[in-house]
Parts: sequence; structure tokens; C-alpha cells
Amino acid sequence: MPIRDELLEIPVDGRAIAGTLIVPDARMPGVLFLHGWGGNQKQHGPRAREVAALGCACLTVDMRGHAMTEPDRPSVTREDNLQDALAAYDRLVREFVVNDDEVAVVGSSYGGYLATLLTTLRPVKWLALRAPALYRDSDWNAPKQKLRKLQDLPAYRRERIAATDNRALCAANAYRGDVLIVESGRDDTIPHPVIENYRDAFGNARSLTYRVLDDADHALSDPSWRHAYTTILVNWITEMIAGKRTGDATSQRRRQDAMKTQQAAASPESVAAR
Amino acid sequence: MPIRDELLEIPVDGRAIAGTLIVPDARMPGVLFLHGWGGNQKQHGPRAREVAALGCACLTVDMRGHAMTEPDRPSVTREDNLQDALAAYDRLVREFVVNDDEVAVVGSSYGGYLATLLTTLRPVKWLALRAPALYRDSDWNAPKQKLRKLQDLPAYRRERIAATDNRALCAANAYRGDVLIVESGRDDTIPHPVIENYRDAFGNARSLTYRVLDDADHALSDPSWRHAYTTILVNWITEMIAGKRTGDATSQRRRQDAMKTQQAAASPESVAAR
Repeated sequence: MPIRDELLEIPVDGRAIAGTLIVPDARMPGVLFLHGWGGNQKQHGPRAREVAALGCACLTVDMRGHAMTEPDRPSVTREDNLQDALAAYDRLVREFVVNDDEVAVVGSSYGGYLATLLTTLRPVKWLALRAPALYRDSDWNAPKQKLRKLQDLPAYRRERIAATDNRALCAANAYRGDVLIVESGRDDTIPHPVIENYRDAFGNARSLTYRVLDDADHALSDPSWRHAYTTILVNWITEMIAGKRTGDATSQRRRQDAMKTQQAAASPESVAAR
Repeated sequence: MPIRDELLEIPVDGRAIAGTLIVPDARMPGVLFLHGWGGNQKQHGPRAREVAALGCACLTVDMRGHAMTEPDRPSVTREDNLQDALAAYDRLVREFVVNDDEVAVVGSSYGGYLATLLTTLRPVKWLALRAPALYRDSDWNAPKQKLRKLQDLPAYRRERIAATDNRALCAANAYRGDVLIVESGRDDTIPHPVIENYRDAFGNARSLTYRVLDDADHALSDPSWRHAYTTILVNWITEMIAGKRTGDATSQRRRQDAMKTQQAAASPESVAAR
């Protein structure tokens, strides 16, 4: 069994002693879940649990302005929540069990927008976006809650936008990892042009997986849509984890199995490639 | 696969956001190594590596007055180093991979004395002492280096001492876990009466394993003695880890195998039960 060392400084009496942690190397990929505006970490609990069962260390968080800190919501900015996402990422990779070369970020709506920006600030190997939101670059430090009116978002989200004209699309264009984009077929908040903008911007991604939940709304209000999204996400992560070990015959077999499962899962009515 | 949750507070911008780490439960026993007076963590590196290969998270440390902080040695007290041991223990069990119900402490000489005291302050399931030192309770805050003269230790270490008359022996008497004591057969620093005092004091231990390295000196200056000690320690830890899962048939077989190995290892000239 491979062994891994980590040098420590252990605080004691206002000083520090040197230590070495010597542990069997059983590192696993890390997966960070970023909820949407108005969401919270609990929504991702069951999904994170399924992903953990694949052998991943998952971290869900409540970003500022949500759950316990909901009273602060009116003043929270994109910058605040991007800092939250960075702090969460750094906390996750600090875990001894997490392989910091293998981090996935999974974001819904506003969390998908933040996840995309995060790829320019930290290494992200796998990026899963469900109904990723889009905002104008202006008013960066304005309260997020005011952007809808301030930026006339419903109109902006009907436009075709070049990757060079938006910070998130620019990040998407620079991204070289694997991408999953899941669209809701009946999404009044994030209409199809936004998804198209993202999909086109990810032209340099190592792989792109694009799925549509046909009848689903933005919030996945029906349990069957949430279930379908979880299935897509779990199959995609299974394939990604298997894919990173392509040199190994057993893993290749697992990868093929995973792909078969994915094909099977893509068949039901609620999930179809568009 | 069982999944484990840990609630986190993640600091960001002088505040904190709530997070939940959701990870496959692959916890393992933790093993803390405490070196002797004048020693350092490097001495335990190869040994800790062998123990880690059994599936344990090991922590070695340089206590104050040793390695990088050797210049401070003249002023270091037993209290200082006991605090070091406590800080190291707390750091080890804080690791997500460590099962805090399953901690072993392994101490040599002065480190064995501190390890014994540690059992009264923190849960220690398994305690391994090689040539454990003994001091009078008086002068607790005097520099450790002065104790030899101050306490006339060579004379004290020839005495038979009741468990009630010494803090470390009292700790030994209260200890309910499993104990390994390894004596050096030709030890001028820790003569046989000290070992006898410890052995008798451990009357309430769940199990006692006592071995003698026949020709070895206190410092195990010959590599073959160090190797023999490592073999005894590794076999003992193997048996302890297997023993905690006695309900499980596979582990029972492993336990039997471990015991066979231990019997075999006890045969060579340099290792004999006395």
C-alpha cells in the first residue's frame, strides 16, 4: 500500500512543534456543490451522498445570504459569494483524504455561474453546471439581488453573447477540463440562449456532455426531475472518475460499464439529448 | 459503502459559512509516536511507515527541546512535553481519516512515561512502552534535564514502588486498555525494577504483552535490536487491530495469522519472553 507523508506544525503554548503525518494513501476526488440563489446546502445533501458513495469526498455549503445568514441576503454581492466558493474550495482540498489534482465543482443556476468563474482562480478538473445563470459584468459589487432590474436580465438572457464579452463565458472559453451542462426544457429563468452561450463558449473543454431535462422547470420542482438530474450527474462523475485511470484494464472495464449505464439512463422520457 | 458527515465552519472575510463534508467512511486507527529524551521523530519514521502499511494513520513529532528546538532543551519541563503530547494527540484525532475511538500511543523511555500519563487525560485504546522511564512526582516544573541529579534517579530506579506512590504508575494502574511493554535486557538507564514496577501497576489492563530484547542496550544502538523491536510492535498492533473486529470471520482468521506470526517472531535469539 502506498504511504503518504504530510509535514505539520502543531500549535502548543503559543509556539509550535514539528510533526509528520504518515498515512496509507487512500486519497479520493473532491466534489464541491454550489447552490443557486435562494437555495441552500440541504438541497444537495442526497445528491452529495450518492456521489460520496462513488468514492468521492463531497462538500456542500450555505453561501452568505442563505440558510442561517438569510437576513444578510439584500446586501450580498457576487464578489462575496465568489469568496465563499473560494474558501469552500480551499477547505475541501485541505482535507487529507482529498486528492487536490482531482476536484469537481457542481453548481446550479447562480452557483453554476460562480463555479465557472472559480475555474479561473483554482484548478477544477471536472465542472458540472445545471441551468447556469448569466449576468452582465458591470455592477460587480452591487447587491446580487438588484441585478435583475439593474441589468435587465430577462432581455440579456435572450441575447447571443460572444465568449469575449462576458467574464463567465470568457472563463468557460479558457476552461480545459471536462464539462457537464444540464438544461431544464421549460426554464423561464435561464432560457435556452444562455445555455447555448455557455455551450459554445466551452469550445476548448476536454469533453462536453450536454443533457436536457425535457419538461423540467428552473427549480426542478418535481421530484422526478431532481431524480433525473441526480442520475445524469452520478453517471457523468462515474465516467469521469473511471476515465482518469485509463491506463488500468480494470478501470477501463469500469468505464465501459459506466458508459453503458449512462446510455441506459439517457433513455427515459424525462432525459433526452437535444 | 457507509458515508460519514462532518459539519464545518469555513472562515471567509472575517465571518464563517456553514459546510458539510460528506465522505465515504474509511476511518482507520491513529498511532502517536513519542520519542525519548534526546531523541526525535526521525527515529520513528521507518517504524511508523510499517505501522501505516497496516492501515493506520501515524503521527510522529519532535517534542520541545528536540530537533529544531534543541537549544531550548535545558529549560524544558515534563509539563511542557506532556502539553506537546496532548497537542499532538488532539491534532491526530482531528484528522478526518482517524477513528478517534481507536488511538494507540507508542512511547520510548521518557516518551513512554509521557504516554502513560497521557492515558489519564485522553482516551488511549492501545499503549506500547519501550523501556519506559520513571521519575519522582516532585519537581514537576523543574527542567527535565536536572531531574537525574535532583531526584537521584539511579537509586530511585532500583526501588520497588507501589502504584499509589507514583503518578505514572498510578496512571498505569487505572489504565483499562491493551499494553505492550518491551524491555532492553542490558539497559543501564532503565533497569529491570522500573519495568517490574510498570508491569505490576498495569494489573487492570485488558491485555498485557511483555517482551525482552535480550542483549539490547537502552538506546537500541544495534540495528538488529531496532529491527527486533519493530517486529514486536508491528505484530502487536496487527493483533490489536484484528482483535477489535472479533465478530468478523475474516478478521478472526487474520488475527490467528497475526498470532502465528507473533509466535514465530518471538523465537529469534534477540527476542524472548522473560
